[in-house]
Amino acid sequence: MQQNGWNNTVTSRDEQRRQKRLAVLTTGARLFNKHGFDRTTLDDIAGELNVSKRTLYYYVKSKEEILFQCNQLGIEFFSDILVRCADKKLPVLERIGIFLRGYADLMSDDLGACLILSRNIPMLEPNRSVLREGQRSLDKVLRDLIAEGIDDGKIVPGDPKLTTAAIFGAFNWIPHWNTSERQVPHRDIAEHYIQLFVDGLRRPETR
Amino acid sequence: MQQNGWNNTVTSRDEQRRQKRLAVLTTGARLFNKHGFDRTTLDDIAGELNVSKRTLYYYVKSKEEILFQCNQLGIEFFSDILVRCADKKLPVLERIGIFLRGYADLMSDDLGACLILSRNIPMLEPNRSVLREGQRSLDKVLRDLIAEGIDDGKIVPGDPKLTTAAIFGAFNWIPHWNTSERQVPHRDIAEHYIQLFVDGLRRPETR
Repeated sequence: MQQNGWNNTVTSRDEQRRQKRLAVLTTGARLFNKHGFDRTTLDDIAGELNVSKRTLYYYVKSKEEILFQCNQLGIEFFSDILVRCADKKLPVLERIGIFLRGYADLMSDDLGACLILSRNIPMLEPNRSVLREGQRSLDKVLRDLIAEGIDDGKIVPGDPKLTTAAIFGAFNWIPHWNTSERQVPHRDIAEHYIQLFVDGLRRPETR
Repeated sequence: MQQNGWNNTVTSRDEQRRQKRLAVLTTGARLFNKHGFDRTTLDDIAGELNVSKRTLYYYVKSKEEILFQCNQLGIEFFSDILVRCADKKLPVLERIGIFLRGYADLMSDDLGACLILSRNIPMLEPNRSVLREGQRSLDKVLRDLIAEGIDDGKIVPGDPKLTTAAIFGAFNWIPHWNTSERQVPHRDIAEHYIQLFVDGLRRPETR
């Protein structure tokens, strides 16, 4: 590995480039979330970063590329959670909790929120398929956990596809109402939602 | 009242105008839902209706007006449900069921889905305030029902605002995944979601 001069106290060029690229993506995501993808221009993003549009082109080719990379990064952030959800030593309801806490983290991040708020922007192939595949894999993990819980007798029987859609809907709605000020801490939302989905509204003694 | 010739077997001019106006709105909603508001033009809507854009202008002034009227009509459709939810003779969980069945009906209709799918389109005053007020009143009815259920001891205590957000999220997500073919009948979705929110995932015997 190449050694940095200055005993690595100075950020390497590669690392600098990576940081700048990430700044472009997070700034893009934040503006897309706030104003909508169609109403955000590369000039807006460059302006927000105090760089020229020409500088921006050194990191990304187009607005579409920013959106694609944002979404890819959002999905990647979730990969650790998926590993933990695969640990069959943990009870299934606990693994569903891990998934949903991780998903609430994702939804409270600009990159994650962008997955939802710019979801209907048409994208060209192959990017379209790449993202669809990523989103499908998230969907499948939660659906499989629900199905596993039903098989184990821990979860009330019912179509796992519909249950998964309801749960994703609730969490995907967070970026719509808990906007930039993020008034409600997302961890509080996650705990409230998990409790609601696991045990329901009805008070046990009235069942 | 003015009598129609032909013993009212022929649709009156007023009724015809009303029907044409409704056709403009529902066609607008359908195209906005499919392609997005920003990517739909008045020409698209006129083309879909096989009329000229000039004819369209006889019914609406702009694309923004179509969106506003669509949303207003969507909210109006819900007013009967709100009356039924106010009937305190019914148990609160039953009234929550009535609300959610009605809301699932709304979400499966192009006008209702448009409320959600074009939700972030910036609108000018006074239309913006009118719609915001309408949406707030829907939100308030469900929140008040939840709060009433908690006070009555029928619903597990917890912030009614977060519970309302979770429930609306689940239902508002329906137009995103149960698209134009509407593969899953919306009444089935409603019953599944109501069961899920009322009684939760966890099997009672394992509680």
